[in-house]
Amino acid sequence: MVFPPLREELRGLAPYGAPQVSLERAPVQLNTNENPYGPSAACAADIAEAVRRAATTLNRYPDREHVELREALAAYLSRDTEPTRGFRVDPAQVWAANGSNEIMLQLLQAFGGPGRRALSFAPTYSMYPEYARDTVTDWVQGHREDDFTLDLDRARALVLEQQPSVVLLPSPNNPTGTALPPEAVGMLCEAAASYEPGGLVVIDEAYGEFRRAGTPSALELLPEHRNLVVTRTMSKAFALAGARLGYLAADPAICDAIRIVRLPYHLSAVTQAAALAALRHAPELLGKVDDLRAERDRTVESLRARGLTVADSDANFVLFGTFADRHATWEQLLERGVLVRETGPEGWLRVSIGTPEEMMAFEAALTEVLTQDPLTEEASTP
Amino acid sequence: MVFPPLREELRGLAPYGAPQVSLERAPVQLNTNENPYGPSAACAADIAEAVRRAATTLNRYPDREHVELREALAAYLSRDTEPTRGFRVDPAQVWAANGSNEIMLQLLQAFGGPGRRALSFAPTYSMYPEYARDTVTDWVQGHREDDFTLDLDRARALVLEQQPSVVLLPSPNNPTGTALPPEAVGMLCEAAASYEPGGLVVIDEAYGEFRRAGTPSALELLPEHRNLVVTRTMSKAFALAGARLGYLAADPAICDAIRIVRLPYHLSAVTQAAALAALRHAPELLGKVDDLRAERDRTVESLRARGLTVADSDANFVLFGTFADRHATWEQLLERGVLVRETGPEGWLRVSIGTPEEMMAFEAALTEVLTQDPLTEEASTP
Repeated sequence: MVFPPLREELRGLAPYGAPQVSLERAPVQLNTNENPYGPSAACAADIAEAVRRAATTLNRYPDREHVELREALAAYLSRDTEPTRGFRVDPAQVWAANGSNEIMLQLLQAFGGPGRRALSFAPTYSMYPEYARDTVTDWVQGHREDDFTLDLDRARALVLEQQPSVVLLPSPNNPTGTALPPEAVGMLCEAAASYEPGGLVVIDEAYGEFRRAGTPSALELLPEHRNLVVTRTMSKAFALAGARLGYLAADPAICDAIRIVRLPYHLSAVTQAAALAALRHAPELLGKVDDLRAERDRTVESLRARGLTVADSDANFVLFGTFADRHATWEQLLERGVLVRETGPEGWLRVSIGTPEEMMAFEAALTEVLTQDPLTEEASTP
Repeated sequence: MVFPPLREELRGLAPYGAPQVSLERAPVQLNTNENPYGPSAACAADIAEAVRRAATTLNRYPDREHVELREALAAYLSRDTEPTRGFRVDPAQVWAANGSNEIMLQLLQAFGGPGRRALSFAPTYSMYPEYARDTVTDWVQGHREDDFTLDLDRARALVLEQQPSVVLLPSPNNPTGTALPPEAVGMLCEAAASYEPGGLVVIDEAYGEFRRAGTPSALELLPEHRNLVVTRTMSKAFALAGARLGYLAADPAICDAIRIVRLPYHLSAVTQAAALAALRHAPELLGKVDDLRAERDRTVESLRARGLTVADSDANFVLFGTFADRHATWEQLLERGVLVRETGPEGWLRVSIGTPEEMMAFEAALTEVLTQDPLTEEASTP
């Protein structure tokens, strides 16, 4: 016996995960795009009260269909569609799971698999190829332009050539912060509907609430494209990373398809209760989102004023560089108590948007580091 | 485009799930092996307080390694190993997920996959082939004897012939209630270690706490077999089906392998907090388990006294029969407000053990039904 008798493709692989560094060593944690503002005392109390009610019947299995939660999520999403496009998202168009990574896994279990392809465009979220690997879906990777945007003609041509079953496209993109232009979504949905049996276009709006004014959500296009799936999470805008709640909006037939592969009772009664309570506090939580967007825009300007190259960001993080030895810069920031993320193309670093105090600490540390270790001269210019 | 462009193998399939019938129509719900006793007021309050504390930092991702929970689960499992075999289960041997079905999925993602086989023995838990399907693992099914036990020589021969990567064996078995004899586990572990690259033997003890006096847990054999995995759940004995917490005990290298395929942050901070709180109430909850075991034994005797054929049960449910038209019997019980499960071999029905009041209602309904619709004469005799 080979022990453990692991699937051949997995041997020697390391698990995904950002380096975890203690709060003592890095009091300023700006590495995993968490929302720095915890739920308010009122919201936390509401979550606890909702769980207390749920706790008395925890001996029973939860609602497999999470009907009440889907109604609340549909109502929330309708804020993005009703004022601009005059339609409401229907609860039958919504499906939730333990984080949007479980949503992605379920989508690939239902629509990917052996002999099928998933496609994305690098640099992008590093978990996508892992979802493909774990569902035995072939992985094809296109490329973004030097400024991290998509060349739409090249992207469409790649979709037509590769005929993927699932296109995974974050908007805004992680780790670059780049939003898709509205025409991209429709063009790619049409391309993916033009071959047999066709593909889904999954627009991953995990950071959608942070988009800049004038950037529309792909939700607006749901009535026009049956093969469009828009995913969201409560981890970021709702400051609920610890509660693990991701969801999607799509044609009801797509939700029905996911039911075949979802684990029975995948979403606990406690998760459903906590998410419902947090949704009741949406206005308060979205107020903090506005603060974070302003802090993000200020950070982009401030970093550019230092001569850094900074990608446009519609998210709650900023990709900046470029550094001759980014790992050294990352370590020098960490030595000053500031944890950022070493991710994206070589030479770049990503910083999550924290509180104004945290961003001051980050910039103060960066000032010290840049004095010691000036920027690489051949910085790419997006 | 075929819409939705579902993976070919899934087309036309229905999602897994027990029929859900409203409490109005079926006040006595004995169909999903839930624990009829909800958490006590003290336990529910403790869960709510734990979640209230967790809620204030829900903006942060949960502990990926769920260290505190694994410590508590290891201490709990050590109750089954320390008095009888003198060793404690180490937290590094424990891994938890959202229900034991996520545990099974992770095991098959890591150790199954294309070109590999999973094996079980029918009649058994109907989700196993779905886990195999969803992980693109080939599915091989052996068979139990007429009395639902395993013929160990035949079982070993099938393992040696099929060389499965994963053997899935519930003990007690669902839906029959049949526990494995102690020698079966060791024999099958040795068989699965005798070929290359070898296989895991997963003993699914979802109902393990309900086993009769004298039936040991497979946990006792962990020091002897590196390829042994014992899975448990908090859904049944801990009356926490709504909280979705399954776990396993195995060699630490198996936990390390699962880390490669687990979704990042798969276990929410809320789930971790709720499970930890429930574990603090283990003595109270296990007291109810003793009540349920006594009620189970009484139910087996009472059904046998009516001339029914009843499988020996080490679980919190009883398989009984046989009925010429079990669907008719199921419906007639439902008409009387009692929901049982139409599962297992043709002619049998399964009833979960409820409160004494619920079991009285079940037996009263059964008396009426049997008067109208006598048993099939060619009842099999386990």
